[in-house]
Amino acid sequence: MTPSNVLSALRFNETGLIPAIAVDHQTDAVLMMAWMNPEAIERSIETGHAHYFSRSRQTLWHKGEQSGHFQEIKSLHLDCDGDVLLLKVQQVGGIACHTGRAHCFYRQYIDGQWTETDPIIKDPSEIYPDV
Amino acid sequence: MTPSNVLSALRFNETGLIPAIAVDHQTDAVLMMAWMNPEAIERSIETGHAHYFSRSRQTLWHKGEQSGHFQEIKSLHLDCDGDVLLLKVQQVGGIACHTGRAHCFYRQYIDGQWTETDPIIKDPSEIYPDV
Repeated sequence: MTPSNVLSALRFNETGLIPAIAVDHQTDAVLMMAWMNPEAIERSIETGHAHYFSRSRQTLWHKGEQSGHFQEIKSLHLDCDGDVLLLKVQQVGGIACHTGRAHCFYRQYIDGQWTETDPIIKDPSEIYPDV
Repeated sequence: MTPSNVLSALRFNETGLIPAIAVDHQTDAVLMMAWMNPEAIERSIETGHAHYFSRSRQTLWHKGEQSGHFQEIKSLHLDCDGDVLLLKVQQVGGIACHTGRAHCFYRQYIDGQWTETDPIIKDPSEIYPDV
């Protein structure tokens, strides 16, 4: 059971969510940003695996439940305003992005356009064979 | 003038904003997360200094305009869904947080409570003498 003071320090937005940034616990490289509701935070703390709230599916999302690319939480941090979480994680499989890349920020602004800078490590059709 | 294709790739939320994560360009350490509107993005690209949209003041916010702690943008990145920006920056003065700390994520979840883990580098009353 997560202590009540942990959630009460957080400022959720008008839809009951808080942004959560996941970074590699060894390199600090930003892997992704997603959203959590109180249940996702509780489940993350209890299980040690990152859980988010899927806004598109409007449901709890155990990251890696389909792909096997779980995120093992090494530490959990909160910002000054209490409205952003930071997770330092071990990214299982080395792939955080549903496009099959190590992280989600694979487009960079170069000379006036978004340019893909990071390779696909694994074909998404192999990651999500049943989708 | 920022090319129109740059903004059209972005998915702003229902209030016209997009989250922007600022990290140290050398260490990747997450400094803060704030929000941008199209004007903030345009100004950031044009000037090379991070501009955000202050939700509390509902106005464009040139980060460092009061403190001198500007953020010089080294590169700008976009995530897979087009709804999160990542800025790799040189943090002038080494202080990103209005509390006088290097970054905003100075609270860590330890043994059931949020514990302060990072020191105040400079007293906020010295950073914002006129506020």
